[in-house]
Amino acid sequence: MTLSARNQLPGTIKSVVLGAVMAEIVVDVGGHEVVAAVTRRSAESLGLAAGDEVRVVIKATEVMIDK
Amino acid sequence: MTLSARNQLPGTIKSVVLGAVMAEIVVDVGGHEVVAAVTRRSAESLGLAAGDEVRVVIKATEVMIDK
Amino acid sequence: MTLSARNQLPGTIKSVVLGAVMAEIVVDVGGHEVVAAVTRRSAESLGLAAGDEVRVVIKATEVMIDK
Amino acid sequence: MTLSARNQLPGTIKSVVLGAVMAEIVVDVGGHEVVAAVTRRSAESLGLAAGDEVRVVIKATEVMIDK
Amino acid sequence: MTLSARNQLPGTIKSVVLGAVMAEIVVDVGGHEVVAAVTRRSAESLGLAAGDEVRVVIKATEVMIDK
Amino acid sequence: MTLSARNQLPGTIKSVVLGAVMAEIVVDVGGHEVVAAVTRRSAESLGLAAGDEVRVVIKATEVMIDK
Repeated sequence: MTLSARNQLPGTIKSVVLGAVMAEIVVDVGGHEVVAAVTRRSAESLGLAAGDEVRVVIKATEVMIDK
Repeated sequence: MTLSARNQLPGTIKSVVLGAVMAEIVVDVGGHEVVAAVTRRSAESLGLAAGDEVRVVIKATEVMIDK
Repeated sequence: MTLSARNQLPGTIKSVVLGAVMAEIVVDVGGHEVVAAVTRRSAESLGLAAGDEVRVVIKATEVMIDK
Repeated sequence: MTLSARNQLPGTIKSVVLGAVMAEIVVDVGGHEVVAAVTRRSAESLGLAAGDEVRVVIKATEVMIDK
Repeated sequence: MTLSARNQLPGTIKSVVLGAVMAEIVVDVGGHEVVAAVTRRSAESLGLAAGDEVRVVIKATEVMIDK
Repeated sequence: MTLSARNQLPGTIKSVVLGAVMAEIVVDVGGHEVVAAVTRRSAESLGLAAGDEVRVVIKATEVMIDK
């Protein structure tokens, strides 16, 4: 990918829940659950489904640190 | 933690770069690099330094999926 | 809290609306309404309900200034 | 304001720090400090300075709840 | 506008979909579709409807570059 | 692109300013200026420079509407 948001972690989709506007995508990332809230439109456009091999992508300005 | 942003991945800080306003924190998360851009004020307040065991925390609405 | 997102304002939850994927939490913060859109999953996991004493938490990079 | 981001809290700027790219604006909001990280370009364009009466503005999808 | 988020592109609303908590607003911006996910509360408060002349507004820290 | 953040607008980079941690990228999008604040690391990794043909990419949850 040539996107400036270079935080990328590979994982496998565990579940997809579609709402009227938003969709919740739960991804297993190395044994940890990562939840993404994207538009239903995006989820359907990409055809996201359980079992898909994907990457979760996060812009650096959105990452917090807990110490 | 009792925060609504429950995406949390454990890792180890690899480097801290301080700018005038912002700080870049690079964290090793299971062999993948995750970069966080936080305020210098936060980095100094938490005393973030290489070698620290931390968690990266991300709100679900900030997570994208690449398939 | 030991989170890098240190903007925290104390308040009281006025209402919780649950959608299929998202939840709207309205918090009274010093007489001003602050609305949070979090995942339904987070709202349920924390058991958020009207009357709860909470803090709204916001990463500095998400704050805008209107002058 | 006619902006969809309607979370608005009135306050007074306490300090402005300018970096090369970003600026840190600290605002006193009802006795609590709120920190905004905006571009230096925005801070200069609005002429932000200590003592200014402003509002901090936050999109609902950026607000987290800590309980 | 006197908001620090100065990225503003004029457009025309093509469609509004209301969910329980969120709303999807599709805006035609110079022939390109831009999708905004805002709270239903905001969409109703502003009375957003197809045909409205609006501006899409985005904080600089939320913009990524794809090259 | 196969990214869930599908808001994409083509443009041409007008200027790049590098700070210690962050970089400001100004893009001409159909005659309008769009400013992106990304990490210096990302800007350098992608080799962003004035004149580059790029796309600005924005997650729908980050887009606000001004009416």
